[in-house]
Amino acid sequence: MHRGEPLLIYETEVAADWIDYNGHMNDAAYALVFSRALDALMDRIGLDAAARKASRRTVYTLQVMLHYFKGTSQGEALFVRCRLLEHDDKRMRVWLEMQAGREGASLAASEQLLISVDQGGTSARAAPWRAETKAALDALANAQRGLEVPPLAGRGVALKRKQAPP
Amino acid sequence: MHRGEPLLIYETEVAADWIDYNGHMNDAAYALVFSRALDALMDRIGLDAAARKASRRTVYTLQVMLHYFKGTSQGEALFVRCRLLEHDDKRMRVWLEMQAGREGASLAASEQLLISVDQGGTSARAAPWRAETKAALDALANAQRGLEVPPLAGRGVALKRKQAPP
Repeated sequence: MHRGEPLLIYETEVAADWIDYNGHMNDAAYALVFSRALDALMDRIGLDAAARKASRRTVYTLQVMLHYFKGTSQGEALFVRCRLLEHDDKRMRVWLEMQAGREGASLAASEQLLISVDQGGTSARAAPWRAETKAALDALANAQRGLEVPPLAGRGVALKRKQAPP
Repeated sequence: MHRGEPLLIYETEVAADWIDYNGHMNDAAYALVFSRALDALMDRIGLDAAARKASRRTVYTLQVMLHYFKGTSQGEALFVRCRLLEHDDKRMRVWLEMQAGREGASLAASEQLLISVDQGGTSARAAPWRAETKAALDALANAQRGLEVPPLAGRGVALKRKQAPP
Protein backbone atom coordinates (compact mmCIF):
# COMPACT_ATOMS: atom_id res chain seq x y z
CA MET A 1 0.00 0.00 0.00
CA HIS A 2 1.22 3.48 -0.79
CA ARG A 3 1.14 5.97 2.01
CA GLY A 4 -1.73 8.41 1.81
CA GLU A 5 -3.60 6.64 -0.97
CA PRO A 6 -6.86 4.76 -1.06
CA LEU A 7 -6.13 1.04 -1.04
CA LEU A 8 -6.88 -0.93 -4.21
CA ILE A 9 -8.75 -3.93 -2.81
CA TYR A 10 -10.83 -5.46 -5.58
CA GLU A 11 -10.95 -5.86 -9.35
CA THR A 12 -13.66 -7.47 -11.44
CA GLU A 13 -15.52 -6.90 -14.67
CA VAL A 14 -19.17 -6.26 -15.43
CA ALA A 15 -20.92 -9.62 -15.90
CA ALA A 16 -23.61 -10.16 -18.53
CA ASP A 17 -26.32 -10.85 -15.94
CA TRP A 18 -25.67 -7.53 -14.17
CA ILE A 19 -27.09 -5.61 -17.13
CA ASP A 20 -30.64 -4.27 -16.78
CA TYR A 21 -33.32 -3.14 -19.22
CA ASN A 22 -31.61 0.23 -19.59
CA GLY A 23 -28.52 -1.52 -21.00
CA HIS A 24 -26.46 -0.52 -17.95
CA MET A 25 -25.22 -2.29 -14.88
CA ASN A 26 -28.18 -2.69 -12.52
CA ASP A 27 -28.17 -0.65 -9.31
CA ALA A 28 -28.13 -3.82 -7.17
CA ALA A 29 -25.04 -5.12 -9.01
CA TYR A 30 -23.09 -2.10 -7.77
CA ALA A 31 -24.03 -3.18 -4.25
CA LEU A 32 -22.79 -6.69 -5.05
CA VAL A 33 -19.42 -5.41 -6.28
CA PHE A 34 -19.01 -3.26 -3.17
CA SER A 35 -19.99 -6.22 -0.97
CA ARG A 36 -17.27 -8.35 -2.59
CA ALA A 37 -14.79 -5.52 -2.19
CA LEU A 38 -15.64 -5.43 1.51
CA ASP A 39 -14.95 -9.19 1.68
CA ALA A 40 -11.55 -8.47 0.13
CA LEU A 41 -10.90 -5.86 2.83
CA MET A 42 -11.81 -8.45 5.49
CA ASP A 43 -9.18 -10.79 4.02
CA ARG A 44 -6.59 -8.08 4.73
CA ILE A 45 -7.55 -7.42 8.34
CA GLY A 46 -7.46 -10.90 9.81
CA LEU A 47 -11.04 -11.80 8.93
CA ASP A 48 -10.55 -14.13 5.96
CA ALA A 49 -12.62 -17.33 5.80
CA ALA A 50 -10.13 -19.43 7.82
CA ALA A 51 -9.83 -16.76 10.54
CA ARG A 52 -13.60 -16.34 10.72
CA LYS A 53 -14.02 -20.08 11.18
CA ALA A 54 -11.28 -20.39 13.80
CA SER A 55 -12.20 -17.27 15.80
CA ARG A 56 -15.99 -17.24 15.23
CA ARG A 57 -15.59 -13.53 14.58
CA THR A 58 -17.19 -11.83 11.60
CA VAL A 59 -18.65 -8.46 10.69
CA TYR A 60 -22.25 -7.44 10.17
CA THR A 61 -23.22 -4.59 7.89
CA LEU A 62 -25.26 -1.88 9.63
CA GLN A 63 -25.58 0.86 7.01
CA VAL A 64 -24.68 1.21 3.34
CA MET A 65 -24.95 4.38 1.25
CA LEU A 66 -24.57 4.15 -2.50
CA HIS A 67 -23.88 7.12 -4.77
CA TYR A 68 -24.32 6.44 -8.49
CA PHE A 69 -22.24 8.67 -10.75
CA LYS A 70 -22.07 6.99 -14.15
CA GLY A 71 -23.43 3.95 -15.97
CA THR A 72 -21.23 1.11 -17.10
CA SER A 73 -21.73 -1.81 -19.47
CA GLN A 74 -20.83 -5.44 -19.95
CA GLY A 75 -17.16 -6.36 -19.87
CA GLU A 76 -15.98 -3.07 -18.37
CA ALA A 77 -13.13 -3.49 -15.88
CA LEU A 78 -14.02 -2.30 -12.39
CA PHE A 79 -11.48 -1.29 -9.76
CA VAL A 80 -12.53 -0.65 -6.17
CA ARG A 81 -10.38 1.38 -3.81
CA CYS A 82 -10.96 1.74 -0.08
CA ARG A 83 -10.22 4.28 2.55
CA LEU A 84 -10.88 3.77 6.22
CA LEU A 85 -12.76 6.86 7.39
CA GLU A 86 -12.82 5.97 11.08
CA HIS A 87 -12.92 3.03 13.45
CA ASP A 88 -13.29 2.33 17.14
CA ASP A 89 -12.97 -0.84 19.24
CA LYS A 90 -15.75 -2.65 17.38
CA ARG A 91 -16.90 -0.63 14.40
CA MET A 92 -15.46 0.75 11.19
CA ARG A 93 -16.72 3.25 8.64
CA VAL A 94 -15.23 2.85 5.19
CA TRP A 95 -15.44 4.65 1.85
CA LEU A 96 -15.31 2.51 -1.29
CA GLU A 97 -14.93 4.02 -4.74
CA MET A 98 -15.50 2.17 -8.01
CA GLN A 99 -13.63 3.22 -11.11
CA ALA A 100 -13.87 2.15 -14.75
CA GLY A 101 -10.46 0.58 -15.16
CA ARG A 102 -7.42 1.37 -13.09
CA GLU A 103 -7.46 5.11 -13.70
CA GLY A 104 -10.83 5.65 -15.37
CA ALA A 105 -13.93 7.62 -14.46
CA SER A 106 -15.47 7.27 -11.02
CA LEU A 107 -18.64 5.18 -11.46
CA ALA A 108 -19.98 4.98 -7.93
CA ALA A 109 -19.06 5.23 -4.27
CA SER A 110 -20.28 3.45 -1.19
CA GLU A 111 -19.98 4.43 2.45
CA GLN A 112 -20.43 1.53 4.83
CA LEU A 113 -20.69 1.00 8.58
CA LEU A 114 -19.68 -2.46 9.84
CA ILE A 115 -19.65 -3.94 13.32
CA SER A 116 -17.51 -6.72 14.76
CA VAL A 117 -19.58 -9.72 15.82
CA ASP A 118 -18.75 -12.79 17.90
CA GLN A 119 -20.72 -15.80 16.68
CA GLY A 120 -19.16 -18.11 19.24
CA GLY A 121 -21.87 -17.99 21.89
CA THR A 122 -25.46 -19.17 21.82
CA SER A 123 -26.36 -16.01 19.93
CA ALA A 124 -24.24 -13.62 17.84
CA ARG A 125 -23.33 -10.43 19.64
CA ALA A 126 -21.25 -7.31 19.04
CA ALA A 127 -17.72 -7.77 20.35
CA PRO A 128 -14.43 -5.83 20.18
CA TRP A 129 -12.12 -6.49 17.23
CA ARG A 130 -9.52 -9.16 17.85
CA ALA A 131 -6.05 -7.71 18.44
CA GLU A 132 -4.89 -8.71 14.96
CA THR A 133 -7.81 -6.91 13.30
CA LYS A 134 -7.47 -3.84 15.51
CA ALA A 135 -3.77 -3.63 14.64
CA ALA A 136 -4.54 -3.92 10.92
CA LEU A 137 -7.16 -1.18 11.14
CA ASP A 138 -4.81 1.06 13.12
CA ALA A 139 -2.11 0.52 10.49
CA LEU A 140 -4.49 1.30 7.66
CA ALA A 141 -5.72 4.45 9.41
CA ASN A 142 -2.13 5.52 9.97
CA ALA A 143 -1.15 4.89 6.35
CA GLN A 144 -4.12 6.92 5.13
CA ARG A 145 -3.75 9.76 7.61
CA GLY A 146 -3.97 13.09 5.83
CA LEU A 147 -6.21 11.85 3.02
CA GLU A 148 -9.04 14.30 2.47
CA VAL A 149 -12.45 13.13 3.62
CA PRO A 150 -14.64 12.60 0.52
CA PRO A 151 -17.11 15.51 0.26
CA LEU A 152 -20.06 13.09 0.08
CA ALA A 153 -19.09 11.15 3.23
CA GLY A 154 -21.79 11.27 5.87
CA ARG A 155 -24.41 12.57 3.45
CA GLY A 156 -27.85 11.06 3.37
CA VAL A 157 -30.33 10.87 0.51
CA ALA A 158 -31.70 14.27 -0.49
CA LEU A 159 -33.89 15.38 -3.35
CA LYS A 160 -32.58 18.92 -3.13
CA ARG A 161 -28.83 19.26 -2.90
CA LYS A 162 -27.66 21.32 0.06
CA GLN A 163 -24.28 21.98 -1.57
CA ALA A 164 -22.90 21.67 -5.05
CA PRO A 165 -21.82 18.11 -5.81
CA PRO A 166 -18.10 17.46 -6.12
CA MET B 1 -54.33 0.99 -1.68
CA HIS B 2 -55.48 2.05 1.73
CA ARG B 3 -55.37 5.70 2.52
CA GLY B 4 -52.49 6.75 4.74
CA GLU B 5 -50.64 3.45 4.57
CA PRO B 6 -47.38 2.44 2.98
CA LEU B 7 -48.11 0.60 -0.26
CA LEU B 8 -47.36 -3.13 -0.40
CA ILE B 9 -45.49 -3.41 -3.71
CA TYR B 10 -43.41 -6.58 -3.66
CA GLU B 11 -43.29 -10.05 -2.14
CA THR B 12 -40.59 -12.67 -2.50
CA GLU B 13 -38.74 -15.19 -0.40
CA VAL B 14 -35.08 -15.54 0.52
CA ALA B 15 -33.32 -17.61 -2.17
CA ALA B 16 -30.62 -20.17 -1.33
CA ASP B 17 -27.93 -18.25 -3.22
CA TRP B 18 -28.58 -15.07 -1.22
CA ILE B 19 -27.14 -16.67 1.93
CA ASP B 20 -23.59 -15.72 2.90
CA TYR B 21 -20.91 -17.26 5.09
CA ASN B 22 -22.63 -15.92 8.21
CA GLY B 23 -25.71 -18.01 7.40
CA HIS B 24 -27.77 -14.88 6.75
CA MET B 25 -29.01 -13.09 3.68
CA ASN B 26 -26.06 -11.23 2.19
CA ASP B 27 -26.06 -7.43 2.36
CA ALA B 28 -26.11 -7.14 -1.45
CA ALA B 29 -29.19 -9.38 -1.67
CA TYR B 30 -31.14 -6.81 0.35
CA ALA B 31 -30.20 -4.28 -2.35
CA LEU B 32 -31.45 -6.73 -5.00
CA VAL B 33 -34.81 -7.15 -3.27
CA PHE B 34 -35.22 -3.39 -2.94
CA SER B 35 -34.24 -2.95 -6.61
CA ARG B 36 -36.95 -5.41 -7.66
CA ALA B 37 -39.44 -3.65 -5.39
CA LEU B 38 -38.60 -0.39 -7.14
CA ASP B 39 -39.29 -2.11 -10.50
CA ALA B 40 -42.69 -3.09 -9.09
CA LEU B 41 -43.33 0.54 -8.17
CA MET B 42 -42.43 1.56 -11.75
CA ASP B 43 -45.06 -0.86 -13.03
CA ARG B 44 -47.64 1.10 -11.03
CA ILE B 45 -46.68 4.57 -12.25
CA GLY B 46 -46.78 4.10 -16.01
CA LEU B 47 -43.19 2.89 -16.36
CA ASP B 48 -43.69 -0.84 -16.92
CA ALA B 49 -41.63 -2.57 -19.62
CA ALA B 50 -44.11 -1.85 -22.43
CA ALA B 51 -44.42 1.84 -21.47
CA ARG B 52 -40.64 2.19 -21.19
CA LYS B 53 -40.22 0.74 -24.66
CA ALA B 54 -42.95 2.86 -26.23
CA SER B 55 -42.02 6.13 -24.52
CA ARG B 56 -38.23 5.65 -24.24
CA ARG B 57 -38.65 6.93 -20.66
CA THR B 58 -37.04 5.20 -17.72
CA VAL B 59 -35.57 6.07 -14.33
CA TYR B 60 -31.97 6.12 -13.20
CA THR B 61 -31.01 5.55 -9.59
CA LEU B 62 -28.97 8.41 -8.09
CA GLN B 63 -28.64 7.49 -4.41
CA VAL B 64 -29.55 4.48 -2.29
CA MET B 65 -29.27 4.24 1.49
CA LEU B 66 -29.66 0.86 3.17
CA HIS B 67 -30.35 0.36 6.87
CA TYR B 68 -29.91 -3.21 8.11
CA PHE B 69 -31.98 -4.06 11.16
CA LYS B 70 -32.17 -7.85 11.40
CA GLY B 71 -30.82 -10.94 9.67
CA THR B 72 -33.01 -13.34 7.76
CA SER B 73 -32.51 -16.82 6.39
CA GLN B 74 -33.41 -19.04 3.46
CA GLY B 75 -37.08 -19.43 2.62
CA GLU B 76 -38.26 -16.50 4.75
CA ALA B 77 -41.12 -14.56 3.15
CA LEU B 78 -40.23 -10.93 2.46
CA PHE B 79 -42.76 -8.13 2.04
CA VAL B 80 -41.71 -4.69 0.83
CA ARG B 81 -43.84 -1.63 1.40
CA CYS B 82 -43.27 1.77 -0.12
CA ARG B 83 -43.97 5.33 0.77
CA LEU B 84 -43.34 8.25 -1.48
CA LEU B 85 -41.45 10.80 0.62
CA GLU B 86 -41.41 13.57 -2.00
CA HIS B 87 -41.30 14.17 -5.72
CA ASP B 88 -40.92 17.03 -8.16
CA ASP B 89 -41.25 17.28 -11.95
CA LYS B 90 -38.48 14.74 -12.60
CA ARG B 91 -37.32 13.16 -9.37
CA MET B 92 -38.77 11.07 -6.59
CA ARG B 93 -37.50 10.10 -3.15
CA VAL B 94 -39.00 6.90 -1.78
CA TRP B 95 -38.80 4.89 1.44
CA LEU B 96 -38.93 1.11 1.14
CA GLU B 97 -39.30 -1.14 4.16
CA MET B 98 -38.72 -4.89 4.17
CA GLN B 99 -40.61 -7.09 6.63
CA ALA B 100 -40.35 -10.77 7.50
CA GLY B 101 -43.76 -11.91 6.34
CA ARG B 102 -46.81 -9.71 6.01
CA GLU B 103 -46.78 -8.39 9.56
CA GLY B 104 -43.40 -9.57 10.85
CA ALA B 105 -40.31 -7.79 12.11
CA SER B 106 -38.76 -4.99 10.09
CA LEU B 107 -35.60 -6.42 8.50
CA ALA B 108 -34.26 -3.45 6.57
CA ALA B 109 -35.18 -0.13 4.99
CA SER B 110 -33.95 1.66 1.90
CA GLU B 111 -34.25 5.30 0.95
CA GLN B 112 -33.79 5.94 -2.75
CA LEU B 113 -33.55 8.92 -5.07
CA LEU B 114 -34.56 8.32 -8.70
CA ILE B 115 -34.58 10.59 -11.72
CA SER B 116 -36.72 10.47 -14.85
CA VAL B 117 -34.64 9.90 -17.98
CA ASP B 118 -35.49 10.18 -21.68
CA GLN B 119 -33.52 7.63 -23.68
CA GLY B 120 -35.09 8.70 -26.97
CA GLY B 121 -32.38 11.06 -28.17
CA THR B 122 -28.79 10.43 -29.17
CA SER B 123 -27.90 10.34 -25.50
CA ALA B 124 -29.99 9.71 -22.40
CA ARG B 125 -30.90 12.85 -20.49
CA ALA B 126 -32.96 13.88 -17.48
CA ALA B 127 -36.51 14.80 -18.52
CA PRO B 128 -39.79 15.61 -16.75
CA TRP B 129 -42.10 12.73 -15.85
CA ARG B 130 -44.71 11.93 -18.48
CA ALA B 131 -48.18 13.18 -17.53
CA GLU B 132 -49.33 9.65 -16.66
CA THR B 133 -46.41 9.12 -14.28
CA LYS B 134 -46.74 12.55 -12.71
CA ALA B 135 -50.46 11.91 -12.09
CA ALA B 136 -49.69 8.53 -10.50
CA LEU B 137 -47.06 10.09 -8.23
CA ASP B 138 -49.41 12.92 -7.26
CA ALA B 139 -52.11 10.36 -6.44
CA LEU B 140 -49.73 8.28 -4.34
CA ALA B 141 -48.49 11.36 -2.48
CA ASN B 142 -52.08 12.38 -1.83
CA ALA B 143 -53.07 8.92 -0.58
CA GLN B 144 -50.10 8.87 1.79
CA ARG B 145 -50.48 12.42 3.03
CA GLY B 146 -50.24 12.53 6.80
CA LEU B 147 -48.00 9.50 7.13
CA GLU B 148 -45.17 10.22 9.52
CA VAL B 149 -41.76 10.62 7.93
CA PRO B 150 -39.58 7.66 9.00
CA PRO B 151 -37.12 8.87 11.66
CA LEU B 152 -34.17 7.52 9.65
CA ALA B 153 -35.13 9.29 6.41
CA GLY B 154 -32.43 11.65 5.21
CA ARG B 155 -29.81 10.20 7.54
CA GLY B 156 -26.37 9.37 6.26
CA VAL B 157 -23.90 6.80 7.51
CA ALA B 158 -22.52 7.63 10.96
CA LEU B 159 -20.33 5.68 13.35
CA LYS B 160 -21.65 7.63 16.30
CA ARG B 161 -25.40 8.01 16.51
CA LYS B 162 -26.56 11.58 16.83
CA GLN B 163 -29.91 10.52 18.26
CA ALA B 164 -31.28 7.38 19.76
CA PRO B 165 -32.35 4.92 17.06
CA PRO B 166 -36.08 4.41 16.61
